[in-house]
Amino acid sequence: MRQLRDLPYEDLGFAKIDNHRALRTGFPEVVFCQGKTNEQVAEVVFALSKRNPKVIATRGAPEMFEAVRNRTPDAVWHEIPRMIVIDREPRPNESDGKYVLVLCAGTADLPVAEEAVITAETMGSRVERAYDVGVAGLHRLLDQKDKLMGANVLVVVAGMEGALASVVGGLVSRPVIAVPTSIGYGASFEGLAALLAMLNSCAAGVTVVNIDNGFGAGYFAHMVNR
Amino acid sequence: MRQLRDLPYEDLGFAKIDNHRALRTGFPEVVFCQGKTNEQVAEVVFALSKRNPKVIATRGAPEMFEAVRNRTPDAVWHEIPRMIVIDREPRPNESDGKYVLVLCAGTADLPVAEEAVITAETMGSRVERAYDVGVAGLHRLLDQKDKLMGANVLVVVAGMEGALASVVGGLVSRPVIAVPTSIGYGASFEGLAALLAMLNSCAAGVTVVNIDNGFGAGYFAHMVNR
Amino acid sequence: MRQLRDLPYEDLGFAKIDNHRALRTGFPEVVFCQGKTNEQVAEVVFALSKRNPKVIATRGAPEMFEAVRNRTPDAVWHEIPRMIVIDREPRPNESDGKYVLVLCAGTADLPVAEEAVITAETMGSRVERAYDVGVAGLHRLLDQKDKLMGANVLVVVAGMEGALASVVGGLVSRPVIAVPTSIGYGASFEGLAALLAMLNSCAAGVTVVNIDNGFGAGYFAHMVNR
Amino acid sequence: MRQLRDLPYEDLGFAKIDNHRALRTGFPEVVFCQGKTNEQVAEVVFALSKRNPKVIATRGAPEMFEAVRNRTPDAVWHEIPRMIVIDREPRPNESDGKYVLVLCAGTADLPVAEEAVITAETMGSRVERAYDVGVAGLHRLLDQKDKLMGANVLVVVAGMEGALASVVGGLVSRPVIAVPTSIGYGASFEGLAALLAMLNSCAAGVTVVNIDNGFGAGYFAHMVNR
Amino acid sequence: MRQLRDLPYEDLGFAKIDNHRALRTGFPEVVFCQGKTNEQVAEVVFALSKRNPKVIATRGAPEMFEAVRNRTPDAVWHEIPRMIVIDREPRPNESDGKYVLVLCAGTADLPVAEEAVITAETMGSRVERAYDVGVAGLHRLLDQKDKLMGANVLVVVAGMEGALASVVGGLVSRPVIAVPTSIGYGASFEGLAALLAMLNSCAAGVTVVNIDNGFGAGYFAHMVNR
Amino acid sequence: MRQLRDLPYEDLGFAKIDNHRALRTGFPEVVFCQGKTNEQVAEVVFALSKRNPKVIATRGAPEMFEAVRNRTPDAVWHEIPRMIVIDREPRPNESDGKYVLVLCAGTADLPVAEEAVITAETMGSRVERAYDVGVAGLHRLLDQKDKLMGANVLVVVAGMEGALASVVGGLVSRPVIAVPTSIGYGASFEGLAALLAMLNSCAAGVTVVNIDNGFGAGYFAHMVNR
Amino acid sequence: MRQLRDLPYEDLGFAKIDNHRALRTGFPEVVFCQGKTNEQVAEVVFALSKRNPKVIATRGAPEMFEAVRNRTPDAVWHEIPRMIVIDREPRPNESDGKYVLVLCAGTADLPVAEEAVITAETMGSRVERAYDVGVAGLHRLLDQKDKLMGANVLVVVAGMEGALASVVGGLVSRPVIAVPTSIGYGASFEGLAALLAMLNSCAAGVTVVNIDNGFGAGYFAHMVNR
Amino acid sequence: MRQLRDLPYEDLGFAKIDNHRALRTGFPEVVFCQGKTNEQVAEVVFALSKRNPKVIATRGAPEMFEAVRNRTPDAVWHEIPRMIVIDREPRPNESDGKYVLVLCAGTADLPVAEEAVITAETMGSRVERAYDVGVAGLHRLLDQKDKLMGANVLVVVAGMEGALASVVGGLVSRPVIAVPTSIGYGASFEGLAALLAMLNSCAAGVTVVNIDNGFGAGYFAHMVNR
Repeated sequence: MRQLRDLPYEDLGFAKIDNHRALRTGFPEVVFCQGKTNEQVAEVVFALSKRNPKVIATRGAPEMFEAVRNRTPDAVWHEIPRMIVIDREPRPNESDGKYVLVLCAGTADLPVAEEAVITAETMGSRVERAYDVGVAGLHRLLDQKDKLMGANVLVVVAGMEGALASVVGGLVSRPVIAVPTSIGYGASFEGLAALLAMLNSCAAGVTVVNIDNGFGAGYFAHMVNR
Repeated sequence: MRQLRDLPYEDLGFAKIDNHRALRTGFPEVVFCQGKTNEQVAEVVFALSKRNPKVIATRGAPEMFEAVRNRTPDAVWHEIPRMIVIDREPRPNESDGKYVLVLCAGTADLPVAEEAVITAETMGSRVERAYDVGVAGLHRLLDQKDKLMGANVLVVVAGMEGALASVVGGLVSRPVIAVPTSIGYGASFEGLAALLAMLNSCAAGVTVVNIDNGFGAGYFAHMVNR
Repeated sequence: MRQLRDLPYEDLGFAKIDNHRALRTGFPEVVFCQGKTNEQVAEVVFALSKRNPKVIATRGAPEMFEAVRNRTPDAVWHEIPRMIVIDREPRPNESDGKYVLVLCAGTADLPVAEEAVITAETMGSRVERAYDVGVAGLHRLLDQKDKLMGANVLVVVAGMEGALASVVGGLVSRPVIAVPTSIGYGASFEGLAALLAMLNSCAAGVTVVNIDNGFGAGYFAHMVNR
Repeated sequence: MRQLRDLPYEDLGFAKIDNHRALRTGFPEVVFCQGKTNEQVAEVVFALSKRNPKVIATRGAPEMFEAVRNRTPDAVWHEIPRMIVIDREPRPNESDGKYVLVLCAGTADLPVAEEAVITAETMGSRVERAYDVGVAGLHRLLDQKDKLMGANVLVVVAGMEGALASVVGGLVSRPVIAVPTSIGYGASFEGLAALLAMLNSCAAGVTVVNIDNGFGAGYFAHMVNR
Repeated sequence: MRQLRDLPYEDLGFAKIDNHRALRTGFPEVVFCQGKTNEQVAEVVFALSKRNPKVIATRGAPEMFEAVRNRTPDAVWHEIPRMIVIDREPRPNESDGKYVLVLCAGTADLPVAEEAVITAETMGSRVERAYDVGVAGLHRLLDQKDKLMGANVLVVVAGMEGALASVVGGLVSRPVIAVPTSIGYGASFEGLAALLAMLNSCAAGVTVVNIDNGFGAGYFAHMVNR
Repeated sequence: MRQLRDLPYEDLGFAKIDNHRALRTGFPEVVFCQGKTNEQVAEVVFALSKRNPKVIATRGAPEMFEAVRNRTPDAVWHEIPRMIVIDREPRPNESDGKYVLVLCAGTADLPVAEEAVITAETMGSRVERAYDVGVAGLHRLLDQKDKLMGANVLVVVAGMEGALASVVGGLVSRPVIAVPTSIGYGASFEGLAALLAMLNSCAAGVTVVNIDNGFGAGYFAHMVNR
Repeated sequence: MRQLRDLPYEDLGFAKIDNHRALRTGFPEVVFCQGKTNEQVAEVVFALSKRNPKVIATRGAPEMFEAVRNRTPDAVWHEIPRMIVIDREPRPNESDGKYVLVLCAGTADLPVAEEAVITAETMGSRVERAYDVGVAGLHRLLDQKDKLMGANVLVVVAGMEGALASVVGGLVSRPVIAVPTSIGYGASFEGLAALLAMLNSCAAGVTVVNIDNGFGAGYFAHMVNR
Repeated sequence: MRQLRDLPYEDLGFAKIDNHRALRTGFPEVVFCQGKTNEQVAEVVFALSKRNPKVIATRGAPEMFEAVRNRTPDAVWHEIPRMIVIDREPRPNESDGKYVLVLCAGTADLPVAEEAVITAETMGSRVERAYDVGVAGLHRLLDQKDKLMGANVLVVVAGMEGALASVVGGLVSRPVIAVPTSIGYGASFEGLAALLAMLNSCAAGVTVVNIDNGFGAGYFAHMVNR
């Protein structure tokens, strides 16, 4: 217990920065901006950036990014997934060809899909995209056959009935991470329909993350791809 | 109101047989056996069979069928969908080639699918089957292409994530009736996952009936096919 | 698979326009505006209108329509159902008299009912209306007897307890498509009460679409009516 | 507080018989048998019968009744609603013609309806029945017009979508008590669909009791009718 | 059916005013303002006021009231329950002393309680109030003992855990109508907790209306009180 | 971490007995029998009894107890709460008069209430009981005034609408632990109604444990009482 | 009953101030501001402050505080938990060293945690804090070992999966009160996930309050700590 | 499409054996026994075993296994996870040391954990176990530190509040697959509590499969481990 207790962290008062996490889990703490003030985010990002070449903050806002950039000028804003990213490291050598493929069913799923993409890329994976390939027009999906077969790990982002995860899971031999989105209305119940569908996928080799959790899927995908 | 009030029915005490329904809706009352005693079912079937050449009873049981056969010897028992059927009419001329196609995703969905088949057939439709064509092995479905394209109306029976309805809905130009089944476990919540998925289908042209309601789908399909 | 893969679509980057859908399913892709930017909608509508005489976009907004009209000046705005429609084809000959009847229970259900009406009409069906005929005043419904009996397919739009679907289903011999709406409060749980009621309808011949999905009901009704 | 504290009750150890309730609320405590042993029920019924001319026990079982009859030989068993009743009082003079009307939608709802009937009758109300009058065959209901219009208070028992409550509520000028039943399957969710539908009734003048609570409806109806 | 069909109603296009309802159910149609435009409400109120001395509109808004008053100057606005009322009839002789008692658990339940009060009063009942008598301070409730015992029918309005209905139901011999409110947070789930609690009341003689449905409770209470 | 890691436990293969828990949390591990075989329970109880003078096993069965007694002959079976208990220690001196009061609303709640009683007693608290004091007969509760006021901590066990917790919470100045039970039917949803009601209690000073978790409440009550 | 009835309260019309509660439960009524107007809050706080040296109002707002301060100038505003507090009493002698420890899992849980802190402190307990000690970085929690072991009672505030309550419950020998927060997204369903997790805690000695109910936890903790 | 359509499958009438799946996804179809007859399972297993050296059937039963062994004598029965397995291939060389670690929180979770173990082992992974390491006794988990740190991929099986997944996720740098189980009672709602908790895990790098889906987790783990 002593050993665990003595792992380093930095106490900011309102937050305790886990400086040991990069060693323990391979990547520093990721900042979840929702429910934090702009100043808290800026301070946490700054504290992390002192010891880590890469920092990711999700669910940000433009004003929040302004506060961050004032203290850490090399931070970058990604508008579609609303992420703040610092990446001071060259990409790893990608000559081994392994890549994460992120698919999404419809245009409205794009912010979640991009959150997965930016996360996996920042962590060091090569990422490919295949967007708007929902099952109502199967040929758009099947036309991506080479991308599908070549991927080392796949992230499938879909709202509504979430059927894309099962169809993709039946076509490939590599792990599929399904991300239900809150896209839909009525009996989608803010993504519950897609979540349940994905958890009940008839295709083996599919796991699921929280509704709209593109970050979690991208993170996990990189862990598998690494 | 008087006109409607004076429509004929037969009062059995515990039930009121709606003798006018065949004229009004094109088919006599259908007997839902669950929650009724064997004797009640036998009496209701007998009363219906006096005035109608066709009688359908769903969710029966072998003993119930014995009680029915004692009073109406030409009743037939269908084991898989657990239906009691009387059909004293020759099939309508099927030379127009129109047929209902009933698909199911897995072997466990068979009882519900057969309920749809027997219902639509008894009512007078030609029915084709395509079973065990779940989306985890798309080629099994695509191999049915001619049956799919030729169908006048389709019934898609699926449990788990119910993705088959969306995939079929995206391939055909005729109406698709989706039947969620209670097949599954855990987060299928007795068919809720498939029900929600089908209600949120990204394919237009899909409507849904109650969980395990093969009868309702077969009935509706015949109405469209007629 | 190659054949399916090679079906034509147009890749706009953020979306893949399915140019083959009109052939496959009888009607081009319909644009679901929610979650898309005005520009994305305008671009997708324009791309579709190049190859199809009819385009439907649902859940739009006035500003969105402005963006659409700039690129496709013959687009029309329907305020009540908030739809953008392009229709360059004369109505089909309606001399066969077949029509879709759209009923709604109360005034507040009107936007959903009109979405069904405009969809079915644009696709080429003749449509009749019977509005504000909820079951608390049965005579208002029964007064529509001729319209009810003459309809080839019926769409019943209702919120709150959704009882209208069952009552109509017991009166007619043609298919009934029930649309639960989110009208209500408290234990209506945004339309869940009406949805469950309609799925459990004691009348055979009733199928259900998603809450507030007037488009889906109109589309399906036209498929049946065609 | 002293006054309230000092109201009489009999302490059986496992239960405290509220001997003051008949004065306070007009009727003695009613025994809910579920979850009690046969002996506990027999003892409670006996204790109540010492001071009250009428005792009602609901959700009993034949063996339980045997145990009761051993101690209170004038107890009567009602098989369909599974009730044990002691009634040592002549019926009140019914010449004022006021009656409770109990309606049910289908044969399977009968046990719940009879629980309401026996409760209200035992308490002293005149009761009329109108069974199997579900809305899928409106003429069976409308044929009961005189019974409907003449009732002083109505109890409507229905499972599945529970639409009967709204239709009856729109026809009469007296209070309607709706009882959802657990009859149904799939998305009826053990009576939830009917419960929600009845709570959302578009007809004013409808209140609701718990699923399958025929007793509560009969009790309340008698209170109103008295 | 003809008789029912021919009952009079006035067709406003977007609504059908049920002119027969006052005869059939004892009170004219009540206007539910939510989801209607100011103009629609004004028109419906005007149409009703032509034939009825009393008109009630619930869930209104100040601007809506302005629109109504322009056409029907004797309309009155009740701010707390947000109701529009026309009442051209003298109160019925109340010398019989029968009254409805409306109780509420907390200050935040007041709008719903007042909706019940104004409804029952407008319909012609004498109404008494007992507010802020939640069970956490039982003496505040017990201090109303005379009001409680003297009431002919009671309306209990409560949010949070809704326990007040059970406590009142155990004290009185007259019918209790329970109204769950959406007051609360977290696991109150917008009134679901109070709704379920009230449906499961251990006191006999309690029925329930929809969450926040003060109108329905007041209406039903008047029906019983009449 | 090393320190924590090195805390002693005994590895039975299928289970790891936490021998340090009595030091850390004041009481040894409690055996939850459900889902374990008779032999597993017997082995775990035996292993615990070697090092602890007191062992509690909940949700047992008579056969299971037989298996336990074979290995640990001083084990005792409590039939109503279905518990296996070993208690080799004299009760602590209770001269300080502090006691836990366990209340239950109805006879059917007894097994859960007794689980709380036996747990707290075995751990060393003095316990008093007040059973069948549901709010529908308030005087039965108020008659316990002295027991209520004298208690150091209270456990309130109730099913159905769970109102007893709020009423008790408003009367006393000591902590109240509420235990919802699965007693009820229909919209009690296996105890959900009581659980939600208790979580929303309008009385401050009430906390809640899982449905039917008499053990948890008794354990916590003892911790407070100690 | 008379005794209970005659307990003093002050009737403000819209509210009845329970002046006896401080005697009965040890602390005066606490004002729940939500759903009350600024003036109502000001009046209630003023009425309470006349007879009590301490007043707590939760879920307030800055404008509301202004209204309060006008009438009771010694009221204090706590921004993070949004509380209004009057405290005219010196802290009790804390030399006995007993304290409440309030832990929270993440920065976003702070407002709820502070509500617990201010409540317990105002009531007279000494309180310690341990914030941002979520289980994803166990060492941050274990580093608080001395605070944990020394606490007399613990409040654990956590959103998302709420795992912190179980981990803390397994480490300490004193009562743990778990407060689920609505922090999270998607399948957290506004705190439902944390609530269910905490109710199912595998650690004995944990009870739960409503989602976001920091006040309830602080109040209960003080009752235990006293 | 032709290519996909022409993939080989064997049609057994009631099932279509997907002979191409082993090529496409790396492993032959897995038989889900639930809802199938003994004969159907035997026939499907036999058909698969003709072309594949390894066959897995989950959720079997002893009689079912007898039927299978009659046709495929080298089938093996695993009692705890109730699986039927054929494995005719030598284990792959495990000298690379990569292994899957399967953890479970309590003894009752064992059947699900073993389903994961047998699945991953049969597919060719080396598997290690760490059972009964729930978070209420953290030292039992931390004592497995070397196993945890050395694992290439981890499967965490837990019921009740499912907190183990988050704690493990915070300690390791490799992917964690969480399996909620239906172990628990009351507000565990058959595993829903654990499912929601795991989906909301505050630790990055955790994905989730369906409740009790040990097979899915083992399958996915092998895919990652391969």
